[in-house]
Amino acid sequence: LQASEHAFDHVLQAIATDSDPWAIVDFSDQPFNFTAEVIKLLEREGFLQFQERGVVLTEKGRALLRERGISPKKLLQCKTCGGSGVDFEQFRDAYEQYKEIAQYRPKPLDEFDQGVLTPEAAFRRLALMIQQGDVENKRLAILGDDDLMSIALALTGLPTEIITFELDERYVRYIEKISQDRRLPIRVIPLDLRDRLPEGLVGSCDTFLTDPPENFFGLMLFVERGLGCLKPGEGKAGYFGVTLTEASLPKWYKVERSLLENYAIVFTHIAYEFSDYENWDFLLDTIRTDIPVFRNQPSKAWYRSTFFRVETLADFAPTNDSFKRGDIYMDEERLVYSRKKGKG
Amino acid sequence: LQASEHAFDHVLQAIATDSDPWAIVDFSDQPFNFTAEVIKLLEREGFLQFQERGVVLTEKGRALLRERGISPKKLLQCKTCGGSGVDFEQFRDAYEQYKEIAQYRPKPLDEFDQGVLTPEAAFRRLALMIQQGDVENKRLAILGDDDLMSIALALTGLPTEIITFELDERYVRYIEKISQDRRLPIRVIPLDLRDRLPEGLVGSCDTFLTDPPENFFGLMLFVERGLGCLKPGEGKAGYFGVTLTEASLPKWYKVERSLLENYAIVFTHIAYEFSDYENWDFLLDTIRTDIPVFRNQPSKAWYRSTFFRVETLADFAPTNDSFKRGDIYMDEERLVYSRKKGKG
Repeated sequence: LQASEHAFDHVLQAIATDSDPWAIVDFSDQPFNFTAEVIKLLEREGFLQFQERGVVLTEKGRALLRERGISPKKLLQCKTCGGSGVDFEQFRDAYEQYKEIAQYRPKPLDEFDQGVLTPEAAFRRLALMIQQGDVENKRLAILGDDDLMSIALALTGLPTEIITFELDERYVRYIEKISQDRRLPIRVIPLDLRDRLPEGLVGSCDTFLTDPPENFFGLMLFVERGLGCLKPGEGKAGYFGVTLTEASLPKWYKVERSLLENYAIVFTHIAYEFSDYENWDFLLDTIRTDIPVFRNQPSKAWYRSTFFRVETLADFAPTNDSFKRGDIYMDEERLVYSRKKGKG
Repeated sequence: LQASEHAFDHVLQAIATDSDPWAIVDFSDQPFNFTAEVIKLLEREGFLQFQERGVVLTEKGRALLRERGISPKKLLQCKTCGGSGVDFEQFRDAYEQYKEIAQYRPKPLDEFDQGVLTPEAAFRRLALMIQQGDVENKRLAILGDDDLMSIALALTGLPTEIITFELDERYVRYIEKISQDRRLPIRVIPLDLRDRLPEGLVGSCDTFLTDPPENFFGLMLFVERGLGCLKPGEGKAGYFGVTLTEASLPKWYKVERSLLENYAIVFTHIAYEFSDYENWDFLLDTIRTDIPVFRNQPSKAWYRSTFFRVETLADFAPTNDSFKRGDIYMDEERLVYSRKKGKG
């Protein structure tokens, strides 16, 4: 276990806050595999006990908390908006339609690193984007759309056009079908984002949105493809989600610095843990199996991402090149522990 | 008028959203002097008219909006939390005490670039900091404290100690008096932040908070003094507020990039327009006087700042050096137009 007192204390605090192992992963703000390793170690050393669905501190564990001055996390999120700060009530009609449509979408697959936003989380992203003026009368690019954000956005009637790049044929067909049935201004383009964008679409959009894979190359690749879609010059916007469960702060740092050094863009929003995800079926088949409490499906949302917004500056110029090649899915911070047991 | 279609459209949209000139400055998300210049130009060219307290688009102005595809800004902030995402109800007692104390504070002066948070805004900052685990059992540094955040934070009973650096003797005395009367763990240190920190305090704190002046050198100086207060290694936090009214996005870019390139820190939060400020008496004495609608005192809060949080990484080491010397208050984006008419 790589020693980091600070990260260790974060996990201890999460354990002091909740007994549900998935809530502990959520509150710890550390990569899953690190949190799991700390829990395993604490159990082995007698600081906590595994119970049927949770973990409980022993007397020795409670003494450790006192010794390290750790108290439960203070939860101060606004309950009305789930801490998002936005209100999408104005788009209630679109929301109801979206919920219905989202229910019948193809099931997320590990193969494509899929995992979808809750409908509320999807509409909170949409509200933030609309409020920033990045949707109305704009041409949008969505890169990877298992969240069906193209449909959510189109249902508001605000965007001029939405270009959706998607690798999974099931989603290509589903979005196309919904879009045709409801006459939504969506163009779905089947594309593996490791390949270059169709030249005609480089520099053609006002706004992009993506939920990238979270190893460094995957993250950079998706965001850079997004930037490739944006028109040159200032005032265009890019949105992307990044978790702490699969991306540590040193990785965030690398991404932030690389983007600022390579592009004329500025960070305007880092909306911390803005987005909640639905639980997914293949979770327990893909994570490590050595810790009993992680063999039960979570009972509520625990996987969250922070929502980043970048805005282009006057010198911005889109490009169809990408940062660097490499595997875009795996690294040691990934939730998926072994692909052997997964569906991929 | 330096041409920027994008910034120009932002001002047009703000005018389409509200007739109150101060609300227009707020919604435009551009430096005050730019917004004022656009309003002046639009009036001269017949796109809008000045009325007693507001501006109204003419038919020619409305045609311009249609032509440029501009519609009013969609306001989607959560009303419960004012868009902040946090709820400070748990600290209601501290809040009531703080409101009382804040009411009798010395009046903000232009000389020290003072301008204070509303009590609600102060407690929203406090709630975010507490929720992130940066207050309880921590040693905090406050750099410049006309917001009396040292008192707000101490009243919660959570911090171990608060070190407050303050230049204005009136505030030094006021904070010391309150702190003695109520036995709060606050140490006030009179200091011009252009001078170095007392050596014994370098690297001594877990968290810093500052609301810096907003020219580039002032911003960097205050944040760097804050970083100088933090203990070495990972997991320490810094908070600072930056507006769009006195700092353009190109300046944000320069600050973000300089910080990432010079320090082992990562941006974890950029809470957009998180903080509202009280109106202040000297406003009309210090801004440009050539535009009639800006000769009336604003009737509600319009000046807002975005709240940044940085977190240190393992390699972080505090330093008592600062980035560069220079005037820390003035630049062309500053609200204060001429110091001749101001009090400074």
